[in-house]
Amino acid sequence: MKETRRISVGGVDIGGGAPVVVQSMTFTSTHDVDATIAQIGKLVEAGCEIVRVAVPKNEDAAALSKIVYLSPVPIVADIHFNASLALKAIDAGVAAVRINPGNIGGPDKVAQVVKAAKAKNIAMRIGANSGSLPEHLRDLEDGADALVRAAMEEVVLLEKLDFYDFKISVKSTSVPEMIRAYRTISDKVDYPLHLGVTESGTPFVGALKSSVGLGALLADGIGDTIRVSLTAEPEKEVEVAFEILKALGLRERGPVMISCPSCGRDNVGVQSLAETVEDRLRSYEEAFEVAVMGCAVNGPGEAGNADFGIAGGRDTGFIYAHGRVLRKVESATLIDELFNEIDTWIEAGMKRPKRLKMAKSATELMAEAAQRA
Amino acid sequence: MKETRRISVGGVDIGGGAPVVVQSMTFTSTHDVDATIAQIGKLVEAGCEIVRVAVPKNEDAAALSKIVYLSPVPIVADIHFNASLALKAIDAGVAAVRINPGNIGGPDKVAQVVKAAKAKNIAMRIGANSGSLPEHLRDLEDGADALVRAAMEEVVLLEKLDFYDFKISVKSTSVPEMIRAYRTISDKVDYPLHLGVTESGTPFVGALKSSVGLGALLADGIGDTIRVSLTAEPEKEVEVAFEILKALGLRERGPVMISCPSCGRDNVGVQSLAETVEDRLRSYEEAFEVAVMGCAVNGPGEAGNADFGIAGGRDTGFIYAHGRVLRKVESATLIDELFNEIDTWIEAGMKRPKRLKMAKSATELMAEAAQRA
Repeated sequence: MKETRRISVGGVDIGGGAPVVVQSMTFTSTHDVDATIAQIGKLVEAGCEIVRVAVPKNEDAAALSKIVYLSPVPIVADIHFNASLALKAIDAGVAAVRINPGNIGGPDKVAQVVKAAKAKNIAMRIGANSGSLPEHLRDLEDGADALVRAAMEEVVLLEKLDFYDFKISVKSTSVPEMIRAYRTISDKVDYPLHLGVTESGTPFVGALKSSVGLGALLADGIGDTIRVSLTAEPEKEVEVAFEILKALGLRERGPVMISCPSCGRDNVGVQSLAETVEDRLRSYEEAFEVAVMGCAVNGPGEAGNADFGIAGGRDTGFIYAHGRVLRKVESATLIDELFNEIDTWIEAGMKRPKRLKMAKSATELMAEAAQRA
Repeated sequence: MKETRRISVGGVDIGGGAPVVVQSMTFTSTHDVDATIAQIGKLVEAGCEIVRVAVPKNEDAAALSKIVYLSPVPIVADIHFNASLALKAIDAGVAAVRINPGNIGGPDKVAQVVKAAKAKNIAMRIGANSGSLPEHLRDLEDGADALVRAAMEEVVLLEKLDFYDFKISVKSTSVPEMIRAYRTISDKVDYPLHLGVTESGTPFVGALKSSVGLGALLADGIGDTIRVSLTAEPEKEVEVAFEILKALGLRERGPVMISCPSCGRDNVGVQSLAETVEDRLRSYEEAFEVAVMGCAVNGPGEAGNADFGIAGGRDTGFIYAHGRVLRKVESATLIDELFNEIDTWIEAGMKRPKRLKMAKSATELMAEAAQRA
């Protein structure tokens, strides 16, 4: 992981080896405090650690002190074009402001906002976005280069003001462009990076685009906080963000289920088995891994690598726990017995025994069964 | 992009700079020819370019010649444990066989299969899987290292037999493990690589895991053919595969829509606007980009970068085409007018004018509107 400078957004550490922070943004009218707080509540329940709210008008700025007071997580005010809104937001006690020094009204306005941020010891997010590049950079051939230049101009501006408590974003709708931009800026500076693919789209396509773009960067240790942008309920953004981080082993949140693809070798209907197990896993907050397998080829091996697993068969299946075959059970009770094992293990404190070598007999047994079939 | 050796799977080029090939696997019983062909039909309609079928039994091998004859795309036979099934599959005319030289019955059996493959001039897929590593590698601390070693043992075996027409996979349920394994093997050999995350899970989580893992590798030019494994209908695998490739600009398939996240700045209900546009785009096969934006901050810029775009407002919105504001229209007819423009453009041959600098007036206009609001 790239070592970045650590900043604090209302007590939540970003960068410097801290866990990658998940954030999102409300889409209520910020001045509607009840609606905004209700949405923040849903976001926090989904695991969101920092919430950004848009502050386009004075009435939104006026609502901030109440929102900051009521929100269980730090609030970041998102401000464009208008420095006085930024000053009001800082005054209202937000944990950070997201501004674009290039559109806030000139160097004097930036200096005013920085002075206010310093006085309250709060952080900033700066950075560029492929959709709102400054005029003089819009014609550059290389979009990634334009993003990096725009962000670096802002960095220079803040450093001149002796201000360093900020994170940077260089977001684009183009995944290859944002990957290149973040890689380049990560080489240039050690400020923490806020990752995102802008305008990524509807839940399905947008989630995949974000997974590709954020995943490619996070896999290389680039990125200190992430926001998945979806045209959807914001709690969906948080869910996708955690799945990306879980896939890379960067964060844990709830159980992880692996299941094999349905294929011609499938002999227990893995799909319905997996759906049932996934449904029942939703009520668990603990982080553990369950494998749902349907056949003799990869089943026993994969199931053996998870905390728990089942490998199905027509009439009987196997239950695995911590790398060992636990027992052979009738298919009808396979899922119930699996969850009994999980519950007992959680009650006993979720101890993970040192991994044992997988019992050879199970693999061989099922391979032999496949041969005979 | 890493330059790999090119192989042909039934006329579909893999590696050597060919476009990344999308493949999937049926989950019908292969011996049920009608069901298998029906599923292949759905896969091909979704864009699948190579289909793998499981061949666990003699009756499945016996069905292959009919399937090969009826399938519009090359068929790969997936065989484990049993060399005689591989020989039968090759005899039936499959375009490639996927075998694991480590479990097919010893060096003599491998030599028999290679001899048959050479005689028919067909390709092979070899490689390892975290769930079915050979016995002597199962205890290695580093799972990625075990995968690479297992695959390299197979490579050595085939090279000794003077056989080089193969692609390699080193799949794992662990995304970081498969990323490391593929990166390592990509450094070691120039055979084309078949990417996949095994047992990646139910459609939502599995698609995200695959996007992260495959995306991280493809972004670096690693990977010549991909399969997304989901516990779902296989055509969903193909859809996700294309979204990953489209996100990275590696393949085109149908229109791409970008839309901004719902946020407090949203003043036209982007979510429903985006859903309507997405629905109407489903009927298009042409590759073009449409932006659906809701506000003055990133809206005009992003919409201006797409082939077409709309940026909404409460009563009126803007239509963009090829980097220019086309006109201001009433919100009620925004979508219809957008699709009229798209249809006219397609009928006229989809010409893309050289990008013009975006009309400054639109950005400024909307920024001013935001200021006034």
